[in-house]
Amino acid sequence: MDKPRIALVGATGAVGKVFLGILEEGRFPAGEVRLCASKRSVGMEVALNGRRLLVEEPTPELFSEVDVVFIAAGSSVSRALAPVAADSGALVVDKSSAFRMEPDVPLVVPEVNGDDLRGHNGIVAVPNCSTTQLVMVLKPLHDANPIARVVVDTYQSVSGTGAAAVRELTEQSGQALEGGEVRPSVYPHRIAFNLLPQVESFLPNGYTQEEMKMTNETRKIMHLPDLPISATCVRVPVMVSHAEAAHVEFEHSISPGEAREVLDAAPGVTVLDDPDSALYPMPVDAEGKDDVFVGRIRQDVSKPNGIALWLVSDNLRKGAATNAIQIAEEAMSRDLLPARA
Amino acid sequence: MDKPRIALVGATGAVGKVFLGILEEGRFPAGEVRLCASKRSVGMEVALNGRRLLVEEPTPELFSEVDVVFIAAGSSVSRALAPVAADSGALVVDKSSAFRMEPDVPLVVPEVNGDDLRGHNGIVAVPNCSTTQLVMVLKPLHDANPIARVVVDTYQSVSGTGAAAVRELTEQSGQALEGGEVRPSVYPHRIAFNLLPQVESFLPNGYTQEEMKMTNETRKIMHLPDLPISATCVRVPVMVSHAEAAHVEFEHSISPGEAREVLDAAPGVTVLDDPDSALYPMPVDAEGKDDVFVGRIRQDVSKPNGIALWLVSDNLRKGAATNAIQIAEEAMSRDLLPARA
Repeated sequence: MDKPRIALVGATGAVGKVFLGILEEGRFPAGEVRLCASKRSVGMEVALNGRRLLVEEPTPELFSEVDVVFIAAGSSVSRALAPVAADSGALVVDKSSAFRMEPDVPLVVPEVNGDDLRGHNGIVAVPNCSTTQLVMVLKPLHDANPIARVVVDTYQSVSGTGAAAVRELTEQSGQALEGGEVRPSVYPHRIAFNLLPQVESFLPNGYTQEEMKMTNETRKIMHLPDLPISATCVRVPVMVSHAEAAHVEFEHSISPGEAREVLDAAPGVTVLDDPDSALYPMPVDAEGKDDVFVGRIRQDVSKPNGIALWLVSDNLRKGAATNAIQIAEEAMSRDLLPARA
Repeated sequence: MDKPRIALVGATGAVGKVFLGILEEGRFPAGEVRLCASKRSVGMEVALNGRRLLVEEPTPELFSEVDVVFIAAGSSVSRALAPVAADSGALVVDKSSAFRMEPDVPLVVPEVNGDDLRGHNGIVAVPNCSTTQLVMVLKPLHDANPIARVVVDTYQSVSGTGAAAVRELTEQSGQALEGGEVRPSVYPHRIAFNLLPQVESFLPNGYTQEEMKMTNETRKIMHLPDLPISATCVRVPVMVSHAEAAHVEFEHSISPGEAREVLDAAPGVTVLDDPDSALYPMPVDAEGKDDVFVGRIRQDVSKPNGIALWLVSDNLRKGAATNAIQIAEEAMSRDLLPARA
């Protein structure tokens, strides 16, 4: 199959727009492209490669006419549509958290666990954005030296919440600069020039859903069901790209030089690590790029076998749209698209 | 001594202004107040309690006419002036890093190690802002259950750099919102809607000065010269207050409830920890307050004896001016001001 027909559910959302941008960059050989969205967007026209595409309703019939269905919407939409699309014979690549922890649904970052695609039953899940960039860095290190524990604190941009949150940060920043009143709407508190130590809802153990996703999804993707990993997830007043300060403990001694060498050789990872010239990853630099950027690699002064580092990636690209497209590419290259009747 | 005469060096800087605001709040019983600053500010007038005070040159004569000299300027200013002021018989309370690690200079957070004032030789150092708020939380916990290791990642506001950095974030934010070009000046890179994983200069071990201050100053203040502690310090686009995600490992088991109880009883610490009502510490709420606010207290899922938590404090108040004033108060209450000839 040279040019798979695809459908994109959630075409008018934050991830959907980035997805269409990536298609326009020409990296994914899509044949026919069908766009779907919620009722209020049906009938809208969306530009793609100079053409105007009509936004359609996501129906079983439409799904039966494509090879891959990308869903970039909320979990409830995915829960309703993914099984329908899979039943109609398409490969579903789902960005939501709805199916990620299902035992028969592969949770895939192609550079890390592309092999897991082999077991799919029509639905493949795209990991949480903050998890994806972390495992891109942890996996090559773990292959070189088994990881014993990970502590990670995140600095997550508002685009992870969606387009409305980007508008909220923009508007609130203007209000704050003018000394006016700042009214929260998307978030429970003001985000402009502030920090929210809450990403998603709280669970009974005091962690947030986002924090436990980082624990549970990392364990699943890396096939390390008992890996000790603890996260604090924080929303910061940044538009795009998530950053993470990670403290990784290894079974055996490892030098920063070895870690840098391993990460330099890892596909999809770019090392930016030259303190003397103030070179390190930053959100504004990572925006619009597909790689995970890592720097500040150093021997942890608090742990003999520890390495501390700092990683940044565009949460809408490798954290979402790019990884979804890579999953489809990987499935195609492995001849794992469902057979059409 | 009821009302000590004081001098404030650095009266026109970011910390100096907050210091004067605290004097106006009436919490410190200052007698005569003398203001000093760099040459270009000498002769300026500064308002205090409805009076206009002249900014003077910091001379040995001036120092000999006061009981306490607060220095809130750079390290080079402190290195030049602190010994002079101490020789002239004043108690020097110095905010800079110049003398903090000197064995004969107490490094003091009064709630934590007020006893260390007893050994002073005329100069007392105020810890780094990010260290002070951390030890305010660590010390009561350590007294309840010995701490074995600390991993901490910071989210530090631009006011820690100074007034010019606050202006830079303000200006760059406006430029970015208007889609214009953003030019860095104070920082090596843009700070508006961005993150800088660099606070101060880099050291040969890959850590920054700020990060190693957190390690070394915490060890000195807590009298734990070998405490394993590792920090990643990050500058965030926030005006005032520093936040920290801390992961604390204890010798023995400790529940979040026990930790909360200990912190609830700690002087200068306020627990804000009710996830169900989205109650947790945030920079905009901590600004202008003297306490260290702590929340997100939970059992670390990656460590049996671990507690994860989140703390926020106004870096210009408890992190600087408030702590300096508290040191003077503590020295007075212990009758430890140098005797005047």
